[in-house]
Amino acid sequence: MMQFAKRMEGIKASDIREILKLTENPEVISFAGGVPDPKFFPVNEIREITGLVLREMGGKVLQYNTTEGFLPLRQAIAARMNKAGMTTQAENIMIISGSQQGLDFSARLFLDKGDAVVCESPSYAGALSAFRVYMPEFIEISTDDEGMNTFELETALKTNDNVKMVYVIPNFQNPTGKSWSLQRRKDLIKLANRFSLPIIEDDPYGDICFGDEKLPTLKSMDTEGNVVYLGSFSKTFCPGLRVGWLDAASPVLQKYNIIKQSSDIHTNALAQAEIARYLELYDFDAHLDVINETYKKRRDIMLEAIDKYFPANCNHTIPGGGLFIWVQMPEPANSRDLLLKVLQKNVAFIPGETFYPNEGIKNTFRLNYSNVGESRIEAGIKTLGQVMKNTI
Amino acid sequence: MMQFAKRMEGIKASDIREILKLTENPEVISFAGGVPDPKFFPVNEIREITGLVLREMGGKVLQYNTTEGFLPLRQAIAARMNKAGMTTQAENIMIISGSQQGLDFSARLFLDKGDAVVCESPSYAGALSAFRVYMPEFIEISTDDEGMNTFELETALKTNDNVKMVYVIPNFQNPTGKSWSLQRRKDLIKLANRFSLPIIEDDPYGDICFGDEKLPTLKSMDTEGNVVYLGSFSKTFCPGLRVGWLDAASPVLQKYNIIKQSSDIHTNALAQAEIARYLELYDFDAHLDVINETYKKRRDIMLEAIDKYFPANCNHTIPGGGLFIWVQMPEPANSRDLLLKVLQKNVAFIPGETFYPNEGIKNTFRLNYSNVGESRIEAGIKTLGQVMKNTI
Repeated sequence: MMQFAKRMEGIKASDIREILKLTENPEVISFAGGVPDPKFFPVNEIREITGLVLREMGGKVLQYNTTEGFLPLRQAIAARMNKAGMTTQAENIMIISGSQQGLDFSARLFLDKGDAVVCESPSYAGALSAFRVYMPEFIEISTDDEGMNTFELETALKTNDNVKMVYVIPNFQNPTGKSWSLQRRKDLIKLANRFSLPIIEDDPYGDICFGDEKLPTLKSMDTEGNVVYLGSFSKTFCPGLRVGWLDAASPVLQKYNIIKQSSDIHTNALAQAEIARYLELYDFDAHLDVINETYKKRRDIMLEAIDKYFPANCNHTIPGGGLFIWVQMPEPANSRDLLLKVLQKNVAFIPGETFYPNEGIKNTFRLNYSNVGESRIEAGIKTLGQVMKNTI
Repeated sequence: MMQFAKRMEGIKASDIREILKLTENPEVISFAGGVPDPKFFPVNEIREITGLVLREMGGKVLQYNTTEGFLPLRQAIAARMNKAGMTTQAENIMIISGSQQGLDFSARLFLDKGDAVVCESPSYAGALSAFRVYMPEFIEISTDDEGMNTFELETALKTNDNVKMVYVIPNFQNPTGKSWSLQRRKDLIKLANRFSLPIIEDDPYGDICFGDEKLPTLKSMDTEGNVVYLGSFSKTFCPGLRVGWLDAASPVLQKYNIIKQSSDIHTNALAQAEIARYLELYDFDAHLDVINETYKKRRDIMLEAIDKYFPANCNHTIPGGGLFIWVQMPEPANSRDLLLKVLQKNVAFIPGETFYPNEGIKNTFRLNYSNVGESRIEAGIKTLGQVMKNTI
């Protein structure tokens, strides 16, 4: 029998994806996914733009393209980032095949076996899977309503000399929906500068914002070139084209470029041209307003239903944006047991344990509201609440 | 200053890509690339099909899709592979973001640091870069007109107990254009079975075949599930969409699937649907006939020009398909020095040294004929021959 590399021993198929398979039955009210509502995908716009791009560019857009990506798209992204308070340029941006790819590349660039990566507890499960390939140690730092506990982080950095990378989602985090306070953002930047550590700032949800004020990204506060910013079109435009981006200081971006070359040469060039043209011809901010209005309404309905139907001794977050609400049940409740029970009543969510790199906390779970119709949200939360009341 | 992982020390930007940047000047007659001629890309067909797919599938094709890929495309690929003498099914096929991604994934799956990978000497430079990330030892096996020297391979496998993977390109190899004889293919399968070794069979050029008879793939001879077959649409359809595939026995494919999940979740779904529809609605084999006729003509012109203009003490291969001719000059000629000289006369090629994982042989180089117009082939080879006669 052929042998696999040792790194494969620690890597399992995603729990979430296995649960999602069960939820393909249309009768299931699924709060499990982390996906946008496809009814907002710009299907007709992409159809028109593809015709336009192929007429204008012909075979050029179907030929091998540069590893760093299609320049007009990189320029458009730089313009959007600058408008959002960052200071960057197309030269610092590389297009990647979804921001997930940026997580794989970051671990490949910064982590040797046994090095430590710092992350929020809990954190995005897909990032943990991507990092695990490189066999690091995970140092989890607890989070509260202001984000990562930076005092605890400082202690961890002082006492562990093997930390090589910090991974955070400061805006409307997956899985909790929490956003970091301005102070915590400042604290993290100071610590990264002091310890010369790269911060991977994952920001797929920053544009899905229900309030008026946005807090500055870590990237916008970075004076030392320590922040690698990952952006995504998956939640705001559509995920199927697999286009995201990575912004880093030039010497760091060059390393990412070398990694990209040997990984998949470049990202689908037609998709890059399509998005560049979309950003040029359409009002993306108006599009964001439409989806944000809908997602905010769904969040509100879910929060109301939670207050109405969940047991009073459960806590939950109140996200100011993004796709998720995080629920904590009193101990010793177990969210995996709860899931098995509610699946029988055609409701699904993701147990919280999945989102911890080391030993998980068993009494938490994640709810998604972006891809469930308003009437089904109330019905699903009601069912879930009833099962919880009978169980915990 | 932030620290990079140790694996980055051995990884450099691709030589070839740096040279290709110099050849963007349209006055340069470039035999350097390994790219198909974009005039054959099905631009209009893709435009029509994209409209069709988006009208039929709507947002579904722009949503997150399954990691293994779009089922109708996997079915169409399985049908083509079966027609070509292999025995497979959609369940054994995973769609990847170009077959380059399959090289990265294969090294990730099979190679721990210090493990050995066996490859042909010389071999595809992009594969060597992809493997280097995982810090293996490279065992190069010499090749002759029948392909890899399998006697030498047997000795290597007997004397090295750290070999974990064999990487080969049996059809119209990059960089040499050589194809393996039937006997060598049989020998390799026997050795892989005897030593329980996975063979990565990279076959991007198999369909670019100038003769009538095709030799069976290793996949078609595999009875033990040791062969991982990598297929590509980049040379025959177009590279810009970044769609390739991987065929492996089920337990092995499951591992690749887990790797794909954490790498980029799935390959661009619109591109997958476009290619599936193309294979359904158009005659891909007729398309292959058209490009093969052209590339054969270009090969013939290049061979004729080589005979006419190159020094008589140079050897070269006569490829039966694919994109490349390999030239060996008498020692101590140095192809890097030659390149610098001919670049001044606006001709380019790739020095052979790039294609060796360990110490390279300096008197070889690779010529591409697929993306150079007929009249320019003769002119470029004439210039190259004149410089060679003055130099070596």
